[in-house]
Amino acid sequence: MPRYKAVVEYNGTHFEGWQSQPHGNTIQQFIEKSFLDINLKKIKIFGAGRTDSGVHALGQVFHFNFDEKLNCKKVLLGINHFLKRKSVSILSIVPVNDNFNSRRDAKLRTYRYKILNRIASPAILENHAWHIKKILNFELMKKASELFLGSHDFTTFRAASCMAKSPQREIILSDLKKKNDEIIYIVKSRSFLQHQVRSMVGAIKAVGESKWTLGYLDKAFKLKDRNKCAPPAPACGLYLESIEY
Amino acid sequence: MPRYKAVVEYNGTHFEGWQSQPHGNTIQQFIEKSFLDINLKKIKIFGAGRTDSGVHALGQVFHFNFDEKLNCKKVLLGINHFLKRKSVSILSIVPVNDNFNSRRDAKLRTYRYKILNRIASPAILENHAWHIKKILNFELMKKASELFLGSHDFTTFRAASCMAKSPQREIILSDLKKKNDEIIYIVKSRSFLQHQVRSMVGAIKAVGESKWTLGYLDKAFKLKDRNKCAPPAPACGLYLESIEY
Repeated sequence: MPRYKAVVEYNGTHFEGWQSQPHGNTIQQFIEKSFLDINLKKIKIFGAGRTDSGVHALGQVFHFNFDEKLNCKKVLLGINHFLKRKSVSILSIVPVNDNFNSRRDAKLRTYRYKILNRIASPAILENHAWHIKKILNFELMKKASELFLGSHDFTTFRAASCMAKSPQREIILSDLKKKNDEIIYIVKSRSFLQHQVRSMVGAIKAVGESKWTLGYLDKAFKLKDRNKCAPPAPACGLYLESIEY
Repeated sequence: MPRYKAVVEYNGTHFEGWQSQPHGNTIQQFIEKSFLDINLKKIKIFGAGRTDSGVHALGQVFHFNFDEKLNCKKVLLGINHFLKRKSVSILSIVPVNDNFNSRRDAKLRTYRYKILNRIASPAILENHAWHIKKILNFELMKKASELFLGSHDFTTFRAASCMAKSPQREIILSDLKKKNDEIIYIVKSRSFLQHQVRSMVGAIKAVGESKWTLGYLDKAFKLKDRNKCAPPAPACGLYLESIEY
């Protein structure tokens, strides 16, 4: 049966995350429904990973089977007409090998986290950044972000409910940039644990506001204890940027 | 009477523009009302310029008088609490000289126009960019944007209803940048005519999609005839970026 790979952008604000739920307003279900909206058969889509309620994506990936050859451009334009009502947009659909798996075959995932660091609340970036009024120490935060580089046990920075077998992950890039009053964190890894990026950003912020020293962060990291984590950053600032295969 | 200068950011999507109207849902009226919301006296604010319905601002400026000394930070935090319901945010309030006038004293206005050039509809940039599906010729558009530099009669590029005495304006910067599928136009002048930026962007787009040649744009410009203008770009892609004094 022909298999397809699709890339999708979405504003996660008004969804209860990616993954289908029994009575859920989820992105997965909304996309599956859009295939019915254009009179295609019922399909099931398989995402490269879940995103939480409120998390956005610039390049989430999913695959699906369809029992006949699709006109990809026509399908894309057709379903986007229905998807745009709720700020979801399919960026591309391409045929792939029958054994392609969006989750298993992903080689590198990139997440972006946006902080708006100013006294005034966001107007343009409402629901699209973490608004922090207290002026943060960017240089300290940059040093904090560098501590995550490399292969580590991320027990401190994963949700208690995380089901991954191993807490070990390798961070390929962990970089912080500043542009006017925006602080952008970019992090790359083959895969991430549940709530890992938001937990790491929460710790970087704790350093930036001088609640934590770099030494304390290092210690919390090495203790491998979830209770030592700072409050995770809110979902609204997080973007699944891209997935490489 | 003490006078104050304020800088304001807003998402213009759900407003009928800046300027007060008899039964209007306008940004000016919404800000004036927010002063009553925090139990301050009724004030009138004077903007540096109007923005149309749907146009956004990153740095609109207004001034107002208040008959006593204000705690600027407290007022800012107080009114932003009410303003954020409709995606408006005061970035700063500072006391200024009694004869400061936000409109008359402006030395340089900067506008930004955002085009999203891809087949897929916008999810993140919905209502915040002009979505153009047909792939545009960026190099031609860049050359088109350069034609506007300098001092010219902009009759072709101003609304028929424009009330300005002279159609002459001097464009200090007219630059186009491309970043992935976004095309950003930045233009600077002491002041602009009604619908001038959107009309200029409409012409640049006509060149980009090869409906107009550069020669035709030059001719339409020199004819000083509003009827020769391409359809103006929609409001949603336009941002009043900053005003310098």
